[in-house]
Amino acid sequence: MDRKLASAMANKPPLISAAIRAKLDAARVARLATLDDQQSPHLVPICFALDANVFYSAIDGKPKRVAPNRLARLRNIEKTPQVALLVDHYEEDWTLLWYVLVRGQAELVSAAGERERALQSLRAKYPQYRGEMLQEDAALLRITPERITAWGDI
Amino acid sequence: MDRKLASAMANKPPLISAAIRAKLDAARVARLATLDDQQSPHLVPICFALDANVFYSAIDGKPKRVAPNRLARLRNIEKTPQVALLVDHYEEDWTLLWYVLVRGQAELVSAAGERERALQSLRAKYPQYRGEMLQEDAALLRITPERITAWGDI
Repeated sequence: MDRKLASAMANKPPLISAAIRAKLDAARVARLATLDDQQSPHLVPICFALDANVFYSAIDGKPKRVAPNRLARLRNIEKTPQVALLVDHYEEDWTLLWYVLVRGQAELVSAAGERERALQSLRAKYPQYRGEMLQEDAALLRITPERITAWGDI
Repeated sequence: MDRKLASAMANKPPLISAAIRAKLDAARVARLATLDDQQSPHLVPICFALDANVFYSAIDGKPKRVAPNRLARLRNIEKTPQVALLVDHYEEDWTLLWYVLVRGQAELVSAAGERERALQSLRAKYPQYRGEMLQEDAALLRITPERITAWGDI
């Protein structure tokens, strides 16, 4: 294969299988791991939408412990964009457990067109976002997968 | 306050309130964030038991993608013991969301007495662990909290 093409492909997000996509689309919550400025892991549950091959998440109107612009996840990805995102399913029958681990880069979405698309994806998935809970000017994160690992009943 | 006493207290795991403890005891799954040798975050769902003020988790008999001694979480904490552990609750009524974020140090449990105690705690919490799913010689992790943050409906 042409080296340039191979390299371009290597930089593209990995394809997501139909089975994994179905789990991710149905999942209502994920957990986002970031690194703080001491290089210690930080972890927070997030709502998210999978749009084509990237994930979007919003700094929404849920109560926050600090002002939105001081949120750990935002400060952290500004300095260290490398993140992990986990979507999993628990039940007492452990033969039915599964998880999808996404490792990649997180970045604030700034372009108006992409912001619109992210807001639409999030509002389509979460009725809660069709009101004031998700403001037009909310900070929006894009998580671009580099590696996706699936385990269990998928 | 006597400086030595203050320092000893600072090194003790933070006390866990009754309300938080009730949530942690009832929770069936947590998510553990570790750092790999590239200092990238890694994330995995784990079963756990809270015993007094530390958390225990086992490398159990659930199918693994790699041999137990090659598991990412073990390799990672050996090099970087700093971890984050998240216990959270999702439902569509977002006024009922909550999470507990624990940041601290993870270590393999080696002393026989503590291993016995960890196995007992895990078996008391998970009926699934009363059979072959949890072997007597399983690797056991202790997570000692340094900071605990609670958010939402707790």
